[in-house]
Amino acid sequence: MADDQVPVHYEDLALLETKFDEVDRQILAKQYILSAPLYAKRQDIISKIDNFWPLVFEQSPPDLDRYITPNDANIFAKLKSLDVTRFEIPMGPENIDADSGDPRSIAIRFEFDQNDYFTNSVLEKKFWYRRSKDGWTGLVSEPVKIDWKAKDPTEGLLAASIAVFEARKKAGDMKKKGFAAHNKLLELIETNNVDNTSFFSWFGFISADRYRVESPEPDEEDMLEMVESDDVHPEGEELAQLIAEDVWPNAIKYFTQAQEMEDMSEMDFEDLSDDDDDNEPIDLRALVGKGKPKTKPSSNGGGEPPKKKQKK
Amino acid sequence: MADDQVPVHYEDLALLETKFDEVDRQILAKQYILSAPLYAKRQDIISKIDNFWPLVFEQSPPDLDRYITPNDANIFAKLKSLDVTRFEIPMGPENIDADSGDPRSIAIRFEFDQNDYFTNSVLEKKFWYRRSKDGWTGLVSEPVKIDWKAKDPTEGLLAASIAVFEARKKAGDMKKKGFAAHNKLLELIETNNVDNTSFFSWFGFISADRYRVESPEPDEEDMLEMVESDDVHPEGEELAQLIAEDVWPNAIKYFTQAQEMEDMSEMDFEDLSDDDDDNEPIDLRALVGKGKPKTKPSSNGGGEPPKKKQKK
Repeated sequence: MADDQVPVHYEDLALLETKFDEVDRQILAKQYILSAPLYAKRQDIISKIDNFWPLVFEQSPPDLDRYITPNDANIFAKLKSLDVTRFEIPMGPENIDADSGDPRSIAIRFEFDQNDYFTNSVLEKKFWYRRSKDGWTGLVSEPVKIDWKAKDPTEGLLAASIAVFEARKKAGDMKKKGFAAHNKLLELIETNNVDNTSFFSWFGFISADRYRVESPEPDEEDMLEMVESDDVHPEGEELAQLIAEDVWPNAIKYFTQAQEMEDMSEMDFEDLSDDDDDNEPIDLRALVGKGKPKTKPSSNGGGEPPKKKQKK
Repeated sequence: MADDQVPVHYEDLALLETKFDEVDRQILAKQYILSAPLYAKRQDIISKIDNFWPLVFEQSPPDLDRYITPNDANIFAKLKSLDVTRFEIPMGPENIDADSGDPRSIAIRFEFDQNDYFTNSVLEKKFWYRRSKDGWTGLVSEPVKIDWKAKDPTEGLLAASIAVFEARKKAGDMKKKGFAAHNKLLELIETNNVDNTSFFSWFGFISADRYRVESPEPDEEDMLEMVESDDVHPEGEELAQLIAEDVWPNAIKYFTQAQEMEDMSEMDFEDLSDDDDDNEPIDLRALVGKGKPKTKPSSNGGGEPPKKKQKK
C-alpha cells in the first residue's frame, strides 16, 4: 500500500477535506446567526444576576482552571461581563453563504468592575483564523495592553511582549530579534515558568504557528511566522477556543452547577450545624471552587455541534 | 444570592436553554444534510483503498484505544467498512426544520471481511436520543446478537445481556430481575472486569440512564430506566459518540496520519538498514500502533462544529 499505488485517491481525499471544511464554515456561520438573538437575550438576563460570570469561571472545566492562578481568580471575581463574537461573520440572512472572512475568527471581550490590579474596564482580544503558505491554519492575534496599578500578575511578561511587538512593527520585520526588548522578553520567559504564568499573559499571545518552527530559515518568508518560540502564552490558541467553545456556550450550565454546589454546601452546613459555630459566613467561592461538579458537559471530539446533555 | 431572590431569572435561563437546544438540533440536521453527499463520495473513494478502516482504527485517539483489546484489534484488522447515519433526520431540503425525530440519534454500521471470530458480515447498532421523565437525555439502544465461531472475546457477556433483554421483553417488565439469566449476567459482570471488557460487549449496551439510579424505587415508573447497573458496557454512550463524532468525521485525517507514520517508519528502517537484516517484512500495523501521531485533531469542548486544522 505504498503511496505510488494510490496517489489519485489521496488527491481525491484532500479535495474532499476542503469541501468538508467549507460545509463546516457554512454551518458555523449559520449556527452563529441563528443563535445570536438567544445570546443577546442571555446577556440581558445575566446582567440582572449578581456574580454570574465569576461563578461560571469558578465552576468551569479543569482545562481552564490550570490557566488561572490564585491572583487571577481574585481578578475574575470582578468579572462583570463576557462577550464572544465571531466578528468576520456578516450578520443578516442574505449573507449566510458569503465568503467574506472566516467564521472561526473570534473576539473575546471582558468587562471588569473596579479592581486592585488594573485600571482598564474592558479588555478585548481578537483572534483571526488564518492560513499560512505551508498549509497551517489557526488563530493569530495581537497583544493587548493592560494598565496595571501596583501588582502585575504577569511579572512583566505582557509588557515585554508588547514592547517586542511594537518594536518589530516599527522595524517592519516581525521576525526581528537580538534587540534589547527582545533579549529582555526571552530572559523573562526563561526566569518565569511559562506554564504557570498568569492568565493575563494570554493577552500577549500572538500565534501558535511559530511553535512549529524548530530551526527557522531566514530565507523562508511567511507572514504568519512572525517570531520564534518567544510567545508569552504558548497555549494561547487552546485557551481562546476553550473560552469561545466551552465557557461561552455552556455558561448557563456552569452557573447552574455553581448554584447546585452552593445548595449542597448549605445543606452540609445545616447538617453540621450542631458542631459548628453559628453565624460563620459561608465563603461561597471557596466552596464552589473546591467542590466537584456533579455533571460536566461532554467534550465533543469531532464533527457536530455539541449535544446539550442534561443529567440531573 | 439565594434561589428565592432570582427565581424568575432561573426560569428565563432554563427556557433559553431549550431554545439553544432547538438551534443545535436544527444545525446538526442541516450539517448532516449538507455533508451527506460528501460522506457518500468519501465512502466511494475509501472503498478503493486497502485497509482504510483498519488503519483509521489503529491511528484513532487514545480515548478509543482503551476500549479495544488485542483480541478486538485482530477483528478490526478485518473491518471492511464503517457507516454512521443519523437515521431520524428526514433527508431532503423541504424537511430540514421538520420535528420528526432527533438528529442526535445515530446508527453505527460495521461491515467485516471473513474473520476467525464471528460469522456476521454486518453488525449494526442503533442509538435513539431520548428524554426521560425526570429530564435526563441520552442515547438508548438494544443489544445486537453476534454469532461467534469459537472464541467469544466478550466472555459470554454479550450473550448474557441479550438473554436478559429478551426475557424482560417477553415478561413485559424491563426492570425484572432475580431470574436465572439475570443472575448469570450479574455473575459474569462481577467475574469479568467490565472496564477491560471487549469492544464487542458494547453491542449489548442498552442505556447509561440506569447508572443514575442508585436506589431504585419500584413505584417510580420510567420507560427509559429499564434495568439497574447491569449493563455490560457502562460507557457505551461515550463510545458511540466517540465513533460518531470523532472517528467518523476525522477518518481521512487519521488515515493520513497512519500513512505518515508508515512513511516515517520506512525512513527509520532505511536509516537503520546497516544494522538490520534486510528483507525483513515491515509490520505496518504494529509500527503504526506503537508510534506517536504527529498531530491530533483538536478536541472541541463546546458550541461549534470542529475547525479542521491542518498542521503539516
